[in-house]
Amino acid sequence: MAVNLLPPQAGDLHAVAGLRIGVVEAGVRKANRKDLTVFLLEPGSLVAGVFTQNRFCAAPVQLCRAHLATGLGIRALVINTGVANAGTGADGLKRAQSVCAALANQLHISPQQVLPFSTGVIMEPLPHERIVAGLPAAVAAADAGQWLQASHGIMTTDTVAKAFSVQVMLSGVPVTVTGISKGAGMIRPNMATMLGFVATDACIDAGLMDAMAHDLAEASFNRITVDGDTSTNDSFIVMATQKAKHPPVTDWSSSDGQTLRRALMNVSRLLAQAIVRDGEGATKFITVTVEGGRSSAECRQVAYAIAHSPLVKTAFFASDPNLGRILAAVGYAGIEDLEQTGIDLYLDDVQVAVHGGRSPSYQEADGQRIMKQSEITVRVVLGRGSSSDTVWTCDFSHEYVTINADYRS
Amino acid sequence: MAVNLLPPQAGDLHAVAGLRIGVVEAGVRKANRKDLTVFLLEPGSLVAGVFTQNRFCAAPVQLCRAHLATGLGIRALVINTGVANAGTGADGLKRAQSVCAALANQLHISPQQVLPFSTGVIMEPLPHERIVAGLPAAVAAADAGQWLQASHGIMTTDTVAKAFSVQVMLSGVPVTVTGISKGAGMIRPNMATMLGFVATDACIDAGLMDAMAHDLAEASFNRITVDGDTSTNDSFIVMATQKAKHPPVTDWSSSDGQTLRRALMNVSRLLAQAIVRDGEGATKFITVTVEGGRSSAECRQVAYAIAHSPLVKTAFFASDPNLGRILAAVGYAGIEDLEQTGIDLYLDDVQVAVHGGRSPSYQEADGQRIMKQSEITVRVVLGRGSSSDTVWTCDFSHEYVTINADYRS
Repeated sequence: MAVNLLPPQAGDLHAVAGLRIGVVEAGVRKANRKDLTVFLLEPGSLVAGVFTQNRFCAAPVQLCRAHLATGLGIRALVINTGVANAGTGADGLKRAQSVCAALANQLHISPQQVLPFSTGVIMEPLPHERIVAGLPAAVAAADAGQWLQASHGIMTTDTVAKAFSVQVMLSGVPVTVTGISKGAGMIRPNMATMLGFVATDACIDAGLMDAMAHDLAEASFNRITVDGDTSTNDSFIVMATQKAKHPPVTDWSSSDGQTLRRALMNVSRLLAQAIVRDGEGATKFITVTVEGGRSSAECRQVAYAIAHSPLVKTAFFASDPNLGRILAAVGYAGIEDLEQTGIDLYLDDVQVAVHGGRSPSYQEADGQRIMKQSEITVRVVLGRGSSSDTVWTCDFSHEYVTINADYRS
Repeated sequence: MAVNLLPPQAGDLHAVAGLRIGVVEAGVRKANRKDLTVFLLEPGSLVAGVFTQNRFCAAPVQLCRAHLATGLGIRALVINTGVANAGTGADGLKRAQSVCAALANQLHISPQQVLPFSTGVIMEPLPHERIVAGLPAAVAAADAGQWLQASHGIMTTDTVAKAFSVQVMLSGVPVTVTGISKGAGMIRPNMATMLGFVATDACIDAGLMDAMAHDLAEASFNRITVDGDTSTNDSFIVMATQKAKHPPVTDWSSSDGQTLRRALMNVSRLLAQAIVRDGEGATKFITVTVEGGRSSAECRQVAYAIAHSPLVKTAFFASDPNLGRILAAVGYAGIEDLEQTGIDLYLDDVQVAVHGGRSPSYQEADGQRIMKQSEITVRVVLGRGSSSDTVWTCDFSHEYVTINADYRS
């Protein structure tokens, strides 16, 4: 029951020149589902990644970091769903390595040119033989027009596939940005989401790639939360195949640079927000904006306190304007010298609290009206500076408990 | 459906000499319930308090701090349930002051000798006229034998009243420690619980009181969490009426000091744990112990990450040994230099993970057996030091969502 999130259509997803995708059934954990995806990149493609800050990061995340660090050009990604290969110790690393080696062998490249990704249940052994057995079919099936299949192939508890695509003109040349993501629970990305892949055929200077991936993650996947649980497997990958024939972008402040950056940011942000819209049990999409802070960090801290409060989230689920719960979350966010008398609270355009107390103009009926909407903006003004920040989250429903009490069964 | 928490019986609750309690119906928010409680202390009683660190602290909390700071002897407590008088601005302060003034007037004491407490819905105005109107009856009803009534009088979403009482001998003289608490949601005390009151007739040196209150809170109410929401109204009060005829306790390391401290600690801890046992929707009582850390602070940080994870809490609800979720929470707890290869995980006596991976001896059936219990200990060994800490929490069920989606209705 995703919130205002339509399933992607194949016709909306533009192929990215220089990138082919194959999706097959490998029987990782469940029968009758395509659970193995490969991305095959032509030589010369640039790839940058941002990964979870969870100290219990999964084996594939450890290998991704190591492989990117070699500086060898990345030529392939291999993604399985079903099993996360996290909390699996040294044995998990070996299994992930054997998958990379098998794919590298088929493609006549080095294993360090393969990035592995896994998502699913933690602490179960990766069935690497079944994945290896599925690779030849995945490579054989690879085609530029498989983005929709890939968006389905990486799902776990997602109810809707997540894919967005835009085309922009750079110096008169059409350039494509297409991306997919997955994730619905264990979502409080810290550097990246569960899994997000964005590809473009744009020509981008190699020196821009890493900082760009971080910037994109910072303004998209690092601003969403479903349940506050930071995954062991979060990975966000940006790929640039360099196939479009425009002059290379070497500077974000150029006209082409701004256009491309906006396109990449739009796709990344839509993919991140799609994860919240499909948040486990979500019935509402909530934008939390905190303004008037001394720094964007303190605004973010307050925004996350609100976005993580089970009491706030259940009130949204119930459409109950029990808005004191939001003030309480502001108060415990950890801003030591916060003065409650400086704080104003708005729901959309309705002023709920002024100077830390109920606004004289506030009517319960107005709060009720906003709370019933499927898209709601909470705006808190701290009254102590000029910084702001925004995070996106969803409400907390019975369905969340049902999904997570049943997930493995 | 509290977890292994029996309702207190009047006969188990010993009166505390020098303290009388009156509980009446004032119609604060709902009809037909006793919602106004007064504690009346004889002159010479010592009172110390620990209060919420929420910056949005309620009007009564602000007054409690101010009144205790005057150094005038506290002679009365007045507690209402139904409305929290938080997020109510300057008007809320005035209303709380008028309640203190009215009670002080009746008792011929200063308003600064009265401590006010409120619990219930946030951001609604305190119906102070109804409370003031109820005070004469509460004072008239005051009696030493009303602890059970008081434990009921302060409840909100609690399903079971919380009261414990012990007697110990100090230098051959019987001394009583009796306490009550309330709270079931918005529970992550930071310095104290929602409301906790512990009284003793022991003679305690005035210089020991404040530090004692902090120490007691630190090892009891500051080690519990239900939903991670720190209340605006958390207050923990320790009262010593000095009526018992033993030589005053001036030093915790004396024999009497140790005996009394143990008694106070036992009552405080039982009261705190009772809040978790009655946590909103709780079906299980979970003890989270983290050992082998470099400091107790980092152990506590990891323990709270586990105790707050909605994914861990729903797995406990489902009796599903999906224990990778616990490792993930350890990983994102924020210990920057934590090495996953040092980490072991136990459920009660079953070793689940060793060196960051699944233990070879671990059988799913063993995990399943423990997960079905109503009392479970999670033990994490960080393998990097000799410090430890423990917090108590409960699972996360459908009932939590139901309670908090319906609380105001």
